[in-house]
Amino acid sequence: MLGKVVIVGVGLIGGSFALALKGAGAVRQVVGMGRSREAMARALELGIVDAIAASAEEAMRGADLVLLAAPVGQTGTILAALLPYLEPGTVITDAGSTKSDVVAAARAVLGARVGQFVPAHPIAGRESNGPDAAIADLYQGKKTVVTPLPENAAGDVGLVAAAWRLCGAIVHTLTPEQHDRVFAAVSHLPHLLAFALVDDIAAKPHADLLFQYAASGFRDFTRIAGSSPEMWRDISLANRDALLTELDAYLAQLTVLRARLAANDGPALEVIYTNAQRARRAWSEAIETAEPTPPQIQEPE
Amino acid sequence: MLGKVVIVGVGLIGGSFALALKGAGAVRQVVGMGRSREAMARALELGIVDAIAASAEEAMRGADLVLLAAPVGQTGTILAALLPYLEPGTVITDAGSTKSDVVAAARAVLGARVGQFVPAHPIAGRESNGPDAAIADLYQGKKTVVTPLPENAAGDVGLVAAAWRLCGAIVHTLTPEQHDRVFAAVSHLPHLLAFALVDDIAAKPHADLLFQYAASGFRDFTRIAGSSPEMWRDISLANRDALLTELDAYLAQLTVLRARLAANDGPALEVIYTNAQRARRAWSEAIETAEPTPPQIQEPE
Repeated sequence: MLGKVVIVGVGLIGGSFALALKGAGAVRQVVGMGRSREAMARALELGIVDAIAASAEEAMRGADLVLLAAPVGQTGTILAALLPYLEPGTVITDAGSTKSDVVAAARAVLGARVGQFVPAHPIAGRESNGPDAAIADLYQGKKTVVTPLPENAAGDVGLVAAAWRLCGAIVHTLTPEQHDRVFAAVSHLPHLLAFALVDDIAAKPHADLLFQYAASGFRDFTRIAGSSPEMWRDISLANRDALLTELDAYLAQLTVLRARLAANDGPALEVIYTNAQRARRAWSEAIETAEPTPPQIQEPE
Repeated sequence: MLGKVVIVGVGLIGGSFALALKGAGAVRQVVGMGRSREAMARALELGIVDAIAASAEEAMRGADLVLLAAPVGQTGTILAALLPYLEPGTVITDAGSTKSDVVAAARAVLGARVGQFVPAHPIAGRESNGPDAAIADLYQGKKTVVTPLPENAAGDVGLVAAAWRLCGAIVHTLTPEQHDRVFAAVSHLPHLLAFALVDDIAAKPHADLLFQYAASGFRDFTRIAGSSPEMWRDISLANRDALLTELDAYLAQLTVLRARLAANDGPALEVIYTNAQRARRAWSEAIETAEPTPPQIQEPE
C-alpha cells in the first residue's frame, strides 16, 4: 500500500497509472501536478487525482512515489523544480519512451541524489490523449521495462516494479542502453520508415492516384505514420545513435535486396521473404499465446 | 445474365467470384477447372461450381466468360491449354496482382486473338485460401481495376466490368503500365520493406530479445511480412522495373532523412513527419468515408 503518489502530467499515461493503482486499492492519495489548469481540473473531476498540488513544495511533501508522465524533453526541467523539495524517502520514476537521454537529464539535475530516480517505460498507449483518455486497465497484461541505475537501492527499484505490477503490467528489466537499442529496432525504426514512406508517396505528383489504390496492407504498414510528429521528432533525436545504427543496418539490407531484385534472383528473394514470414509467424504466435489480438486479415493485393 | 462461366483455379479469388455471381443470380452455370482434384471436388461439394470440366475442350465449349484465378506465373501455360478451344464469342479475364507481365504472356500465347483477353485485378483478399475460404461478399465495396488492351472490343471490356459490378466491386480503369506503377508504390514496395525489416531483425544475434519487446506498432507494420514468400517473389519479379523505381526513390528519401537525423536537425525531421501524418490522416479519413474500417489503436511505444 502506497501512501502519497504524485503524478506529473495527468494525461493518458499518468492518469491510467493513477486509476490502476486506485482500482487495486493500492494508494491512499494521488496528487496531480501539471502545466494545464484545465487538464488538472478535469483529472480531479474524473476522480483520477484526489488533489491538485498548488506548488512543487506541496506536491513533494511526504510523497512516496512520483511518476513523471510528461514529454521526455521536459524531464530535466521538471526534476529541477522538484529537487529542492525531494525528501530522502521519496522515489521518482518516469514513463518515457527513451531511457539514456532521460537518465542523462536526471544525472545532470539530481547529481548525487540520482539514486532516488528509477527510470521505467510502460509499453502501452492509445491514440487518444488527456485525462479523459485514461483507463484503469491500460497496462493490464502489457510490459513495463524498468531500467535501474547502479545508484538505485534495491528497495526503490522493487517499489517501482511493485507499483507497475499492481497496475497489471509484466515487469521486465533492461539497462537504459539495452532498452534504447531494443526499441530503436522494433519501434523507432519502423516509425521512421513509415513516416518516410508516406511522405515519399505524398510528395509525388500523382499522389492522389496512388492513395486511391492503397488498401489494407498499406493501411496497416503506415498506421504508425499517423503518430504525433513532435513526439517522434523528440524520440528520434533522443535515441539518435541507436536509431542510426538500426537504420544503417536496414539500408544495407535493402541495398542487398535491391541488387538481388535487379539481377532477377528469384531464389535469393524467396530466401529473404521466407525467413521473414517464418519469423513473423513465430513472433505472432508467441504474442497471441501471451495476449490475444484481433484476427489478422491479410490481403494479397 | 451470363450463361456459362469458367473459373480456372477455384480458390479464394475464383471461388468468391463464382459465389458472388451466383448470389446475384447473374450466371446460369459455373464450371471449375484446376490442377487439384481435391479442391475441385470440394468446390463442387460447396456449390461454388456446378460442374468440373473433364478437359479444356469441354470447359471452353460455349463459355461466355473465363476467369483465370491461378498464380500469375501460370498465365501463359493456362492460356496455351485453352487457346485451341477458344470460341470467337468467349471473353477471358484474369485476377492477377500484376498486369504488364500477364499482358505480355497473353500476347505471346494468344497472338492475334489477344483482343479476347481483358486483364483485371480485384483489390481484395484474405489470409486463408482454397475453396473453403471463398465467400460471396469478398468483393463487396472493394475496387477492381480493369486494364483494357487496345485490341479489346468495348463490349468485351464492358462484360468484364459488369461481372465485377455484379460481385459488388467498384470498377476502375487503368492501363497495365499505370496499374503496375501504382501498385509498386502502394503495395509491392511496402511488402518488400516489411519482409526486409523482419528478416533484418531475425538475423541479428539478439533477435529473441528484440522480438520480445515488439508491440502493436511493429505488429501492424510487419503484418504483410506474413504473406506468401512464393507469391511475393513472383510479384516482385513480375513488376521488377516499377518496383526498382519506387525502391530507389524510397532509398533516396531514407538517405536524406538519415542525414537530417545525423545532423540533429529536429525541424527537418518534424517537417517530414508532419507531412506524413497529415497525408496519412487525410487518406485514412477518405477511406473510412468510403468503407468503414475497424477503429485504429495507436501506441506511442
